[in-house]
Amino acid sequence: MDKLNINQHISQQYNSALDDLKTEFLALGGIVEQQIIKAVKSITDVDVDLAAEVMAVEKEVDKREIVLDDLCTQIIARRQPTASDLRLVMAISKATRDLERMGDEANKIAKMAIAISESETLPHGFSELRNLGRQVQDEVNITLTAFARYDVDMALQVVDKDEEIDREYATAMRELITYMMEDPRNISRAMSIIWSLRSLERIGDHAGNISEQVIYLVKGLDIRHKTADEVAEQVSQD
Amino acid sequence: MDKLNINQHISQQYNSALDDLKTEFLALGGIVEQQIIKAVKSITDVDVDLAAEVMAVEKEVDKREIVLDDLCTQIIARRQPTASDLRLVMAISKATRDLERMGDEANKIAKMAIAISESETLPHGFSELRNLGRQVQDEVNITLTAFARYDVDMALQVVDKDEEIDREYATAMRELITYMMEDPRNISRAMSIIWSLRSLERIGDHAGNISEQVIYLVKGLDIRHKTADEVAEQVSQD
Repeated sequence: MDKLNINQHISQQYNSALDDLKTEFLALGGIVEQQIIKAVKSITDVDVDLAAEVMAVEKEVDKREIVLDDLCTQIIARRQPTASDLRLVMAISKATRDLERMGDEANKIAKMAIAISESETLPHGFSELRNLGRQVQDEVNITLTAFARYDVDMALQVVDKDEEIDREYATAMRELITYMMEDPRNISRAMSIIWSLRSLERIGDHAGNISEQVIYLVKGLDIRHKTADEVAEQVSQD
Repeated sequence: MDKLNINQHISQQYNSALDDLKTEFLALGGIVEQQIIKAVKSITDVDVDLAAEVMAVEKEVDKREIVLDDLCTQIIARRQPTASDLRLVMAISKATRDLERMGDEANKIAKMAIAISESETLPHGFSELRNLGRQVQDEVNITLTAFARYDVDMALQVVDKDEEIDREYATAMRELITYMMEDPRNISRAMSIIWSLRSLERIGDHAGNISEQVIYLVKGLDIRHKTADEVAEQVSQD
């Protein structure tokens, strides 16, 4: 091989390492997305088998998180990426953690499904859970697509949506507290729904974090700790 | 300058960049630690001024998080660290996020202090909050010292302690639910205490994450997703 070919060869290896990293990241995203969908269904259908299915995936998610992390460190150490490549590696390193946390929250919801199945009467709040669940699932789906396509507009949509989800969550929470006051014997059961709503809200937060990484990746902008309006303004100025 | 001196000069610059990074990280740790202490005090003393003080620091924490993140990326891009130096940068990059989240949770506790101050009667659960608060503060303090000294034994202590905190949290939660059942008119107020307990438990989790980074840093071991016993065994095998 002459020098040009060697360089080309190295650069192909390098690109394929980055592609592999992104593919691995999106694969984990797909697994966690399924976990969330199943977790919400397991609680609203009181389906213990489905809840067990969600919990069985935890070890797989943990393993993949560690593999992804190692990949990030290896690429930095061996290939010394700079500029946008380094941004991609750092973004994936952070977003991986968000995915793992989302899986954790899905697990907690599945545990609540099992707790609820053991009680004789069903608690209030299933429709609130179903509503918020649907919105958060949408948010996660848009986030992963935004990452796959490096689509800033979709990522901005998520940042916007997250504020809406927070409002929806606050409303659901007030309703649950009213239920508890009306029927204090069922407080323990109602708490299972409250924790599940909280987990959904957290999943939404993590999806928002990942979307911020997409914007950072494409625009090189750090938009953490900014409101949706501030972000939209900052992005449109480019 | 002859070649040796230039190399020495570059290597001094490099070391001082890593030292600066660690110093900045520990400075943020100190700020967040104070936030946690004040947040717990603001709620158990129902001290609105102190709560406002905690909340005023949020922007400072956010700013420092971004500065630390930029420092990490710059060091990787310009100095291309490898082996243990790269581990330090990656560990700080992750642990910074944990610190910022701990600050967020301290903020939430401060908000609950303000919510409680507006009600006429005080909710139950202050002693549970004070207890858990003390334990979590200890955990955070040991974590930061373990990081400053690269002390694996101290870090292991935190991983151990976190399981104890989780048990204490579960007990406190059961007691709060009993209070709510006995006095359903005070459910909203009791929920403020429940959210604060939850925030403390989260702070403990984040301290645990940072301690895991200390172990990874010193031993090169990844101990995430392992129990305290498994970790102790793994570390002792070295």
